[in-house]
Amino acid sequence: MTEPTATPEVRAFHDALVAGGLLVPTGPLGALGHGPEFEAVIAAFDAFSARAILGGGAAPIHFPPVIDRAILERTGYLESFPHLCGVVHSFAGSEREARAIPPRIAEGRSWGDLLAQTDLVLTPAACYPFYPTCAGTLPPDGRHVTLLGWVFRQEPSLEPTRMRAFRVREAIRVGTPDEVLAWRAEWLVRGRELLAMVGLPVETDVAADPFFGRGGKVMAAGQLEQQLKHEFLVPVLPGEPPTACCSVNYHRDKFAQAFGITLADGTPAHTACMGFGLERVALALLRTHGLDRHAWPAPVRALLWP
Amino acid sequence: MTEPTATPEVRAFHDALVAGGLLVPTGPLGALGHGPEFEAVIAAFDAFSARAILGGGAAPIHFPPVIDRAILERTGYLESFPHLCGVVHSFAGSEREARAIPPRIAEGRSWGDLLAQTDLVLTPAACYPFYPTCAGTLPPDGRHVTLLGWVFRQEPSLEPTRMRAFRVREAIRVGTPDEVLAWRAEWLVRGRELLAMVGLPVETDVAADPFFGRGGKVMAAGQLEQQLKHEFLVPVLPGEPPTACCSVNYHRDKFAQAFGITLADGTPAHTACMGFGLERVALALLRTHGLDRHAWPAPVRALLWP
Repeated sequence: MTEPTATPEVRAFHDALVAGGLLVPTGPLGALGHGPEFEAVIAAFDAFSARAILGGGAAPIHFPPVIDRAILERTGYLESFPHLCGVVHSFAGSEREARAIPPRIAEGRSWGDLLAQTDLVLTPAACYPFYPTCAGTLPPDGRHVTLLGWVFRQEPSLEPTRMRAFRVREAIRVGTPDEVLAWRAEWLVRGRELLAMVGLPVETDVAADPFFGRGGKVMAAGQLEQQLKHEFLVPVLPGEPPTACCSVNYHRDKFAQAFGITLADGTPAHTACMGFGLERVALALLRTHGLDRHAWPAPVRALLWP
Repeated sequence: MTEPTATPEVRAFHDALVAGGLLVPTGPLGALGHGPEFEAVIAAFDAFSARAILGGGAAPIHFPPVIDRAILERTGYLESFPHLCGVVHSFAGSEREARAIPPRIAEGRSWGDLLAQTDLVLTPAACYPFYPTCAGTLPPDGRHVTLLGWVFRQEPSLEPTRMRAFRVREAIRVGTPDEVLAWRAEWLVRGRELLAMVGLPVETDVAADPFFGRGGKVMAAGQLEQQLKHEFLVPVLPGEPPTACCSVNYHRDKFAQAFGITLADGTPAHTACMGFGLERVALALLRTHGLDRHAWPAPVRALLWP
């Protein structure tokens, strides 16, 4: 792994967030603590976006930050994104075997080979735990839910916009192709609108996921060509291109095939999801309106703290 | 690993929670989804206890569900609880090496040996990420914080009171031995009081952590003898002993020694913590007052939903 670098401007932004008590360094890259003012912004935008999503008829649901390893295995995640996965390993040996761990630690060596893979992984995208719960025949109007979830991606970075653990306010639609495409069309407008309402300068773009390796280039090109992923981007890091703060994804029947989700006529359902990256939205708000949320424009404060 | 078992009464309680939409099965033991009514109870008790803790002068802080692996290594966690740890492994190899993963999955074999240990672990106790941030000389009145954190313990179980990933509303005090002991004495009263206020039948007990192996028996005996851990227990599982819903722990200078936290005179600080296991408190409330929170006693509802 090459050591991550950041421009002096990005470092200065990071350092200002730390000096202001918004971020709390803890050692590892991209796994920072958060001060109360940063959490207040996260909670406010989460509640603001959740109100809009719930108002559109979504039902709330909730999952822990670890999920069934089989979900990664059945969706081809290890073929597309092996470099981003987080798998939970633990110790399952004897007392004698356990005594091998402390000397390794004392010598500063890895002790990972003394552990075993468990049946759990860190959630790779906030929508993943929901699909298996839809297995079988969908109810007449399909499913429409929202959740706040912790997501993990193994991409250590000095950029405060690239946490390894981050939260997403997610909305998920499961139904007929027509229902799902209509829902996506609606959120391509409303997702952007919600960011614009709180004063963020938003651009929309068609995007691709960071597929692994040379083979991944072909997959990314296919995703772009079929316009399966849209992102709403906002300038956050000084001197850098804007950051994706929300994405809207259409999966066609990928998850329905993986988990056996069918329509009444027995054909596979379609799915789409939309998620706000809450740490990124909070950083975009702090960058746009300043580090003191009490000095933000009154209309923005009125929307976020009604 | 032996297959976990549960009595018919415990299974019936689990099944009633699932039938009522409070818990959502996802496959792996102890990593269930939660329905909106369960989350409403969690959020309400969290807010209720956080108000009490903040009213006592704690400052809010926040950490993600993954923390520096060095925190486990420096606190002796792998000597005491190797069987409970959750370590994040990921793939850091070449494209050629990545191609070995999908065939393993297709054959239903473990692919953990193709991954490498990262610098992150799942948080083993909600207070752990805070101590390293106190390194150096403490401010005059020490530190007093509260946080809501995700905790991981590798103990697969059919009991709904034993999730592998669960949330804790935590309060932490760092200061002189006198300050910390006075704070602990206060929370040995107030922690119990908060549970009793919402109608839970609470017992207090001196307890020990589930130390690993035969050597662990000695450590548990020492912890009991020194009364370092107190628990507040409430009946939750039918036909089973009551469940610890809150614990109050005094660590003396263990964490200060591990992370170099000193008082103004250069001696090591002392620390104590108190945490409500929110899923357990929610289950205790549902067990005590019934599965429909709208039918709970009016005084309890008034405290939880003011």
